[in-house]
Amino acid sequence: MVVILKHGVNRDKADLVKQQIQKRYPHLTDIKISEGEEIITLQIIGSKERSINPTDIEGIEGVERYIPILDPYKLVSKDFQPYPTIIRVGSGKNAVEIGKEFVVMGGPCSVDENTPEIAQMARDAGVKILRGGADKARTSPYSWQGMGEKGFEKLAEAGQAAGLPVIGEVVDTTRIELASQYCDILQVGMRNMDNYWLLKELSQVDKPVLLKRNNAATFDEWMLAAEYLLLGKDDKGNGQYIGGNPNVILCERGILSFDKPNSRNVADANAVTQCKNKTHLPVVGDPSHATGKRENVVTTGLAYVAAGADGLIVEAHYDPSLAKTDSAQTIDMKQLSYLVKKGEELYNSLRSFI
Amino acid sequence: MVVILKHGVNRDKADLVKQQIQKRYPHLTDIKISEGEEIITLQIIGSKERSINPTDIEGIEGVERYIPILDPYKLVSKDFQPYPTIIRVGSGKNAVEIGKEFVVMGGPCSVDENTPEIAQMARDAGVKILRGGADKARTSPYSWQGMGEKGFEKLAEAGQAAGLPVIGEVVDTTRIELASQYCDILQVGMRNMDNYWLLKELSQVDKPVLLKRNNAATFDEWMLAAEYLLLGKDDKGNGQYIGGNPNVILCERGILSFDKPNSRNVADANAVTQCKNKTHLPVVGDPSHATGKRENVVTTGLAYVAAGADGLIVEAHYDPSLAKTDSAQTIDMKQLSYLVKKGEELYNSLRSFI
Amino acid sequence: MVVILKHGVNRDKADLVKQQIQKRYPHLTDIKISEGEEIITLQIIGSKERSINPTDIEGIEGVERYIPILDPYKLVSKDFQPYPTIIRVGSGKNAVEIGKEFVVMGGPCSVDENTPEIAQMARDAGVKILRGGADKARTSPYSWQGMGEKGFEKLAEAGQAAGLPVIGEVVDTTRIELASQYCDILQVGMRNMDNYWLLKELSQVDKPVLLKRNNAATFDEWMLAAEYLLLGKDDKGNGQYIGGNPNVILCERGILSFDKPNSRNVADANAVTQCKNKTHLPVVGDPSHATGKRENVVTTGLAYVAAGADGLIVEAHYDPSLAKTDSAQTIDMKQLSYLVKKGEELYNSLRSFI
Amino acid sequence: MVVILKHGVNRDKADLVKQQIQKRYPHLTDIKISEGEEIITLQIIGSKERSINPTDIEGIEGVERYIPILDPYKLVSKDFQPYPTIIRVGSGKNAVEIGKEFVVMGGPCSVDENTPEIAQMARDAGVKILRGGADKARTSPYSWQGMGEKGFEKLAEAGQAAGLPVIGEVVDTTRIELASQYCDILQVGMRNMDNYWLLKELSQVDKPVLLKRNNAATFDEWMLAAEYLLLGKDDKGNGQYIGGNPNVILCERGILSFDKPNSRNVADANAVTQCKNKTHLPVVGDPSHATGKRENVVTTGLAYVAAGADGLIVEAHYDPSLAKTDSAQTIDMKQLSYLVKKGEELYNSLRSFI
Repeated sequence: MVVILKHGVNRDKADLVKQQIQKRYPHLTDIKISEGEEIITLQIIGSKERSINPTDIEGIEGVERYIPILDPYKLVSKDFQPYPTIIRVGSGKNAVEIGKEFVVMGGPCSVDENTPEIAQMARDAGVKILRGGADKARTSPYSWQGMGEKGFEKLAEAGQAAGLPVIGEVVDTTRIELASQYCDILQVGMRNMDNYWLLKELSQVDKPVLLKRNNAATFDEWMLAAEYLLLGKDDKGNGQYIGGNPNVILCERGILSFDKPNSRNVADANAVTQCKNKTHLPVVGDPSHATGKRENVVTTGLAYVAAGADGLIVEAHYDPSLAKTDSAQTIDMKQLSYLVKKGEELYNSLRSFI
Repeated sequence: MVVILKHGVNRDKADLVKQQIQKRYPHLTDIKISEGEEIITLQIIGSKERSINPTDIEGIEGVERYIPILDPYKLVSKDFQPYPTIIRVGSGKNAVEIGKEFVVMGGPCSVDENTPEIAQMARDAGVKILRGGADKARTSPYSWQGMGEKGFEKLAEAGQAAGLPVIGEVVDTTRIELASQYCDILQVGMRNMDNYWLLKELSQVDKPVLLKRNNAATFDEWMLAAEYLLLGKDDKGNGQYIGGNPNVILCERGILSFDKPNSRNVADANAVTQCKNKTHLPVVGDPSHATGKRENVVTTGLAYVAAGADGLIVEAHYDPSLAKTDSAQTIDMKQLSYLVKKGEELYNSLRSFI
Repeated sequence: MVVILKHGVNRDKADLVKQQIQKRYPHLTDIKISEGEEIITLQIIGSKERSINPTDIEGIEGVERYIPILDPYKLVSKDFQPYPTIIRVGSGKNAVEIGKEFVVMGGPCSVDENTPEIAQMARDAGVKILRGGADKARTSPYSWQGMGEKGFEKLAEAGQAAGLPVIGEVVDTTRIELASQYCDILQVGMRNMDNYWLLKELSQVDKPVLLKRNNAATFDEWMLAAEYLLLGKDDKGNGQYIGGNPNVILCERGILSFDKPNSRNVADANAVTQCKNKTHLPVVGDPSHATGKRENVVTTGLAYVAAGADGLIVEAHYDPSLAKTDSAQTIDMKQLSYLVKKGEELYNSLRSFI
Repeated sequence: MVVILKHGVNRDKADLVKQQIQKRYPHLTDIKISEGEEIITLQIIGSKERSINPTDIEGIEGVERYIPILDPYKLVSKDFQPYPTIIRVGSGKNAVEIGKEFVVMGGPCSVDENTPEIAQMARDAGVKILRGGADKARTSPYSWQGMGEKGFEKLAEAGQAAGLPVIGEVVDTTRIELASQYCDILQVGMRNMDNYWLLKELSQVDKPVLLKRNNAATFDEWMLAAEYLLLGKDDKGNGQYIGGNPNVILCERGILSFDKPNSRNVADANAVTQCKNKTHLPVVGDPSHATGKRENVVTTGLAYVAAGADGLIVEAHYDPSLAKTDSAQTIDMKQLSYLVKKGEELYNSLRSFI
């Protein structure tokens, strides 16, 4: 950390600031004070920094600004684990290795009676994991809220019939057990990325978790959410963590835009590259939610792959106009098939370099 | 709704679009087609619109854009209930009428051993409701996560001793019962504004709910979250709503900024005015989270009042440098007292006009 | 246009609104009034709409909202010109056809003494047009402001020696003549995209213009800026336009992010796809400014190509650490060469589909 | 500055980084190297920092991040000039002291034939300076572009007749002379805040300049734009600055929002408070552009005053529906009069504290 003191704070006051920091964080024994030409700064460099809460320091009188030096996350970092995490789902010839091979997860936005048929066609188009929503999180209470438990059942059946592992969303702590019963991968939707209560529970589960980035989360906030999953739960608040789920898949699905009428979100391809540079976790892109527009899904999907994604998750239907939800961003089987093929080509072509 | 068709779509294709809309929404019997000079549009005006999901329509081939005509929310609207909702908490001489009198809710960010003393001093400074966090939602898993159940206990005791009703946050559906036991008002934090599963459960509770705006939520998304609370729960998906909680307080606490180093969030005073123009619900501003900086809390608090707020919720401590969390944005008792006094003056001075 | 009236406005008042609109816009003779269940709307569909200023209508009492139906731009639209615009620069074996072949424009951020050498190496790496800044627009007055006129001279010389056409930036109306003397393409930087005075003058110039998108401009605002260039100048305010420059290249260079520390801007690949869907103008991506980080430039560049870009403009140097400006986002010759090669491969592979 | 090196960079490489920094900036003789537990950092504290360009440092191999310690601006800072700048315009009984008394600048968005009448009424409502646009910067080329030179004439005449100094906008370097001839204050519109070529020319002019904040500018970028005005012009690039205009008025007019349909911009009241905390320059708020909505102008105007503004600039008309431009955000004389009165009351009430 570097602590910048306000203009006009002298050495005596700087010592007081140091004392106040140490009163709160007694283990910070080696804070150095540097007197500059215009201002004074305090520094400490070391892993102790991660336990410091910036606003604690900025709350001390005389402090202008707190600057962290280290990345705030640790377990998700490549510095901590240099080799890539590979996540295996399914078995036999349906086995998939996320982080090692190019993987497209596809299927309808919401599970309904057409899901089994879509599953078969999606598999033929090259999809390796079936997606589909059972519990839905809808902006309006007047919108359809999904099939719930029956949806999970149907999703699992459709996956089994098509020979595909399935991914489904968990929207509340009370639904983890249900979802775990039916799904091979549990999805945390973008609205729940910062639902830390849910993340702590999912850190106790023996299923891979796909963690969508909230559309307003910084890269660091997203990484810290993943850190919650890997770290486990400190029930007694004594620094003893229970559990911890190492099988986390990151998912970029577009960030908030000032130009909503033209773009539901903005695909942040750069963040995907940063995931590959900074973490050991696999990362996929979701071009359906990133664009909101069927005609832009394929190009944005390829853009994610160009940026280094290990795979994609897309909404697809044999007749998108029949999709129960998200029809406008649902692609058809021809587009899906093209996306899988071109995506794989590009993935293989870039693999040696990125 | 107005449905704008793509350039080049002719009358025959427009009829097909109309048919597809009616196949999905059979009750939309009166769709009109208008042929313009360059393009064709379809229109329907009426309350049926609220059941339409824009992406369903935009998913139909030939459709360029869907434009809603009505506000998507109903129960929270002034058009539906023209007189203001007034929410009563506390009793006897501690009774408070939110929406009728100027109300400052104040107290520490997190409950700890100093809370009882803060409560007394906050009351003396003019605070009418005690705030304090027991279950905390923290960005980093390495940050302190709050006192939990013991925190709720202590908060309730401190409020009782000082003669103040209390407000506390609910972070998960499994914590509603606990929080309800101790708190007079249940707070939904900004990260949970779009946790619809939680909102549905809170629509069944007999306690007022303070609903913070997510820092990335549009005005309409915020209003729809409130609508979830007022509307109740449709357990069987048959359009029969159970419960519904009419006692909702809106809370603006700043929105996402591209200038984070200088401003944690941006206080959206304009949104407060819009609340007063559009809804019958009381609205308060949270200048602590909106600014993140102690020295800007008072001015931003007054800016919210100038914009029409019915009150404020602020983090305060007799010695902000001791605050367990959010120290940098916690004001002291002198600032609190000034804010209450000037806020009330301004509130009364503007009351006749707004 | 659709004009939505406020809740409670009756038919008589709606007639008054119609009269007020027609008083301001006498040629809008065919406004239709539709009485809905909750509210009344007014409509007119036709090209007359583009002359309407939304805030004029929203300023009329009783009006809730103005909704445009048509895209606000015309000359840049595919609906107006269905075949793609191809822009030719250079001659003989140095001739380049932007919009027809894959084109990478590359070179140093700022022109300096190393520019001639960079030009040669960039050409060998596959670059077809040399870029380099002479007049620089710097955020801080304490930063180096560029070589000015001498820079233009050196840029032109370096291009000629390497057999490459050159592109240079025009920062003010008083510099158009100078820049035109030395450059084959005139660049409008992102800060000047909405400098309409400059655009009007550039609409009179016989050189292609590359128009960067402002990092806070919506897609429509960007297109309207291009429309200024194509339309020409109405000196006398009588609707008679002089000039008009049909040779406009669009350039996406990233939009404003709430996550600046991690990403200088966010590459909006989706906007590139939208350019291809909506306009006939060629579009290039600028991954250097979009990312701000050398290690992310190649992947983001390929993401732009995946999204449909006709080419790229990148900052490159044989030794990026020597770059006078923008060193952090300047790639070296090996990266440049890889980007050109993989970019071209991808461009050709996708060409048939997009 | 603090330079954070990448994980894994050892002491020898750190020395190399230091050498490369000193090669570029020979005057940085006292760089200290600190070896931390996980990483190494380099530091230098002193005014030399302002000459460093962050991307130069981040461009060096092995560097992870550059962190500035000092504010990047100097002349506008309170640290440099502790007493407030007061700007005098007009003379005799029309004299106004901006920064000392509460000042509302008001008038039509665009000058037209009604301007003289508006001027008289605005003066009666308490306005002290007349505003009005002659050269207009319009998003669409199909919108009316203003009266130009005749508009400046009419504005000056209207001001003289009403006994009010006038403020008018300069949209291009070639219009400075014209505008200076007629106006008492020159306005730089939000689109030109980062038009550094224009700012350099205005640093040579003997008239106060009102500098609007670009709606996508960070606080620091805005301050640096003001720094351009105060610093003057370094024609020969030898560090010798000519001129410099000390009479700069800052103007906050709302920043970019992700919620445009509900709010044209978001008034950043917090930034106004920050201006008062950080600089010696007077600051005014522009609630018309910040909200875009007549019914929200008064409350947002008062919010700016609550935040510490020295005054306001507002669009007003005796009949807003007649306003040639920006009709929707133009208030009438009754609202104007109320805003001036309540604004002044609030300003005086808070004066002692802020």
